[in-house]
Amino acid sequence: MRMRNKPWADDFLRENSDVVISDPETLNGQWENVFTANQPLHIEVGTGKGQFITGMAKQNQDINYIGIELAKSVIVTAAKKIQDMGLQNVKMINMNADSLTDIFEEGEVDRIYLNFSDPWPKKRHEKRRLTHSYFLKQYEKILGGKGAIHFKTDNQGLFEYSLKSFSEYGLLLTDVSLDLHNSGIEGNIMTEYEEKFSSKGQRIYRAEVEWRS
Amino acid sequence: MRMRNKPWADDFLRENSDVVISDPETLNGQWENVFTANQPLHIEVGTGKGQFITGMAKQNQDINYIGIELAKSVIVTAAKKIQDMGLQNVKMINMNADSLTDIFEEGEVDRIYLNFSDPWPKKRHEKRRLTHSYFLKQYEKILGGKGAIHFKTDNQGLFEYSLKSFSEYGLLLTDVSLDLHNSGIEGNIMTEYEEKFSSKGQRIYRAEVEWRS
Ligand SMILES: C[S@@+](CC[C@H](N)C(=O)[O-])C[C@H]1O[C@@H](n2cnc3c(N)ncnc32)[C@H](O)[C@@H]1O
Ligand SMILES: C[S@@+](CC[C@H](N)C(=O)[O-])C[C@H]1O[C@@H](n2cnc3c(N)ncnc32)[C@H](O)[C@@H]1O
Repeated sequence: MRMRNKPWADDFLRENSDVVISDPETLNGQWENVFTANQPLHIEVGTGKGQFITGMAKQNQDINYIGIELAKSVIVTAAKKIQDMGLQNVKMINMNADSLTDIFEEGEVDRIYLNFSDPWPKKRHEKRRLTHSYFLKQYEKILGGKGAIHFKTDNQGLFEYSLKSFSEYGLLLTDVSLDLHNSGIEGNIMTEYEEKFSSKGQRIYRAEVEWRS
Repeated sequence: MRMRNKPWADDFLRENSDVVISDPETLNGQWENVFTANQPLHIEVGTGKGQFITGMAKQNQDINYIGIELAKSVIVTAAKKIQDMGLQNVKMINMNADSLTDIFEEGEVDRIYLNFSDPWPKKRHEKRRLTHSYFLKQYEKILGGKGAIHFKTDNQGLFEYSLKSFSEYGLLLTDVSLDLHNSGIEGNIMTEYEEKFSSKGQRIYRAEVEWRS
């Protein structure tokens, strides 16, 4: 689903299909062939401009990363970062996360990152929140019923909703911070939104949940 | 377990056994006889000076309340409040909550309130936290595997710990607020600690968890 109003982005994506994978459905079950090393696969849903995923990929060369991003205008920026940093272990896909199961085989993914997902505060948009059971069901499939979701947000309402949604889904809360930047964390890689909100003094919330074994 | 250094408190409790129940073990399974009306029983663990439980008892005449409190010096204040307000639907017990199952029969209690429980921040004191699985097991028994825990605290570390502990125990998180006093709540009855901390601008955290049916 490419938008007509960004022809320059279309051109960029066409010419850089080594970084922003076109026709990702055809790679279902074969993502390890896309990377130079056969190692665990972590994905980020709603990558934005890519500061987090490129930082993670640089820090963890023994993991492969895929960023899922709907908006072409920002995915271009993420792709340029990957190229500038010369990273071999991170790729992007321009798609809506509502069809993740078309792209990844059952159990093909080992971890999912959600960072500063759109809050969709209105009750009638609840189904669009990336922590709604509608999405959790898809995550469960591509994770093969194991693995973890790591979630960060500045949005209190979305975080409260997500804690309830995870609990209702039966997920195990293995870690939670209600003020990440005053919790003595180490090795935290900040996203663009995280930098913006934390520099304004806003709290960052973080949770890790797992499928129970 | 009466402390030697409060003889005035001992005297008060002895003389007011209609409000602060002595020998509560003998009433196991028969708590409804202690009250004038046969109606649901809610208990608060760590009642302190009783502002919450007396406020609740006044607001909800169709519920019976029992406050569990270890410290004699504060239970006296709670008992005086009950007498001054002429409340028939609230009693106190001077005991440690670690033996709740000696006092209540399986399923005799319908809801448990925990308010501003001592945080016991040191890892080696974890077992003393009132949301540790050691206590959850007792709550489960006296609730008969159904019913809810309503928990409020200002303590970030205790709240994070408790969310994880509830999840690990398999409880369902049905409600959570990460800033209770800015959440447009109605009918909230404040405890002494809640008044003190919220007037200093500190956030109040609140969670409701339930046994899954
Ligand atoms: C608020 S931004 C956060 C960006 C980045 N994660 C950060 O923390 O700076 C949310 C991003 O998620 C993307 N997004 C929202 N819903 C999506 C969906 N269903 N599938 C893929 N991406 C989505 C948006 O296009 C946007 O770039
Ligand atoms: C920090 S105070 C809070 C009092 C009151 N709930 C409030 O919010 O103002 C905690 C209270 O719990 C009581 N407490 C702590 N551990 C207890 C236990 N194991 N059994 C009964 N009471 C306990 C303490 O004596 C103290 O009065």
